[in-house]
Amino acid sequence: MGAAPVHAVSVPYGRLGGVRKIHVIGIGAGDPEQLTLQAVGALRGTDVFFVLDKGEVKSDLVRLRRDILDAHVPEGTYRVVEARDPERDRSAGGAAYSPAVGDWRSARADVYERLIAEELGEDESGAFLVWGDPALYDSTLGILEEVLARGAVDFTYDVVPGISSVSALVARHRTGLNRVGRPVQITTGRRLAEGFPEGVDDVVVMLDAHQTFRRYAGEDIDIYWGAYIGTPDEILASGPLAETAPRIERLRAEARERKGWIMDTYLLRRRPREQ
Amino acid sequence: MGAAPVHAVSVPYGRLGGVRKIHVIGIGAGDPEQLTLQAVGALRGTDVFFVLDKGEVKSDLVRLRRDILDAHVPEGTYRVVEARDPERDRSAGGAAYSPAVGDWRSARADVYERLIAEELGEDESGAFLVWGDPALYDSTLGILEEVLARGAVDFTYDVVPGISSVSALVARHRTGLNRVGRPVQITTGRRLAEGFPEGVDDVVVMLDAHQTFRRYAGEDIDIYWGAYIGTPDEILASGPLAETAPRIERLRAEARERKGWIMDTYLLRRRPREQ
Ligand SMILES: C[S@@+](CC[C@H](N)C(=O)[O-])C[C@H]1O[C@@H](n2cnc3c(N)ncnc32)[C@H](O)[C@@H]1O
Ligand SMILES: C[S@@+](CC[C@H](N)C(=O)[O-])C[C@H]1O[C@@H](n2cnc3c(N)ncnc32)[C@H](O)[C@@H]1O
Repeated sequence: MGAAPVHAVSVPYGRLGGVRKIHVIGIGAGDPEQLTLQAVGALRGTDVFFVLDKGEVKSDLVRLRRDILDAHVPEGTYRVVEARDPERDRSAGGAAYSPAVGDWRSARADVYERLIAEELGEDESGAFLVWGDPALYDSTLGILEEVLARGAVDFTYDVVPGISSVSALVARHRTGLNRVGRPVQITTGRRLAEGFPEGVDDVVVMLDAHQTFRRYAGEDIDIYWGAYIGTPDEILASGPLAETAPRIERLRAEARERKGWIMDTYLLRRRPREQ
Repeated sequence: MGAAPVHAVSVPYGRLGGVRKIHVIGIGAGDPEQLTLQAVGALRGTDVFFVLDKGEVKSDLVRLRRDILDAHVPEGTYRVVEARDPERDRSAGGAAYSPAVGDWRSARADVYERLIAEELGEDESGAFLVWGDPALYDSTLGILEEVLARGAVDFTYDVVPGISSVSALVARHRTGLNRVGRPVQITTGRRLAEGFPEGVDDVVVMLDAHQTFRRYAGEDIDIYWGAYIGTPDEILASGPLAETAPRIERLRAEARERKGWIMDTYLLRRRPREQ
């Protein structure tokens, strides 16, 4: 080991300009009041917001991000950089993940890398505003890790947790995620189509374009369903699956027709066999 | 059905004084900045805060609730009512749920019923401040439902979701809860002791007084662990379970010794068998 050279410091050389900082900020799943104080603080400490537009009908969602900035960050203190988010191969249908997800992630990494390298000064802070909680079915963290691994651009980042649509769903239904001492699983519509998960009676389903709950309408299950939760368009329905499933199908079809797109999540709760 | 009588209104009679309102407010799992704006609004709209003291060493947690009120609600606009929360039979050890949980819940319902009936005026709003997210391993909603079912006192309530310790854990580790398109399960230490859950490779464990992760140290699993997350005492550790488990055991024992109590949560992530 020997004596440490005089210049040994814990900060690497060649970074006289500092290192870019990025916040990944969970903004909640629709209700702008569900921002945390920490998120508001991070927004106010941000120089450049990256807004990725999927070029979809969901421009409502892009607008909500804009509204959040307008409400919480003094004008003139930040820039917004918009970019087109590469589209996923949706041939597998709707919101389900397709095998093209790997390519798609790498194409997105190209975009993120360019944004960070070209649009963010070395002493600046950038932010990605993530729907709900960045921890749930969101690719931002994975993409940033991929950009870092490539090594072409350097930055540090932190994550501000957000209220997920899962949390918002059960709060609106005034129920818990788990029952006393029991587990809960969070999964996708695609997985649910393969069978009801083993070993759990409480299952939250996201990313379900096919109303997969209908498969289980013959079983002793309650459903707690919500669409556009936290927004002015919010719709809720709950009850025994057998009678509630047709009602949800109707509500969902009407809403989808009216708005052109839908975001919904639900909890399936199997009733105890004996009690 | 016949013609509706002249006095038919959708509000029941005998409630000239209005109906008591209760907010169940998720306050985050340790970081006061993780309150949502909605929670702050609900705090400010509350006349009476019910603070239930478990008479435990965890008075730090009661203090945090007090600090939150001091920081966000103008003095003199509210009352705080403290009560002793009946103790759970802990003979089964630590934080695990014991079979006495039913009795315990009913004893708590007695306390809540009395608090609401005696301490909350008919036109007032009360609030219970719940650690993390009220949806995860918390009995407040179940108890309020029990009080309502008894019928002795009437009230309406709403739920303000909070950032859970689960969300806070993964944000600090800058990782997701699920991997792309895959499920995640949230469970207890007691359940994990019965075996690694089926059908999932990502498992979050709460309420584990026995460091049950040690059972799986021989398997190809990564752990992301955190104690006192979001507080000044926060400790984080992560890595392959085999080498990280002994380190966590050490950190945990030291911290527990120092503070007299510990709250920890972890994510176990099984590495893919082939990739
Ligand atoms: C790509 S995932 C993102 C989840 C997000 N990170 C979160 O924490 O809620 C998108 C899925 O989240 C659910 N979702 C998001 N926002 C929602 C809302 N406001 N109402 C209902 N479901 C929502 C739907 O299941 C949708 O398919
Ligand atoms: C009765 S449960 C309540 C969970 C709470 N409702 C939530 O959303 O986090 C208590 C368990 O939550 C976890 N927990 C709560 N706060 C924590 C913190 N600040 N750090 C680590 N774990 C925490 C621990 O696993 C603890 O045993």
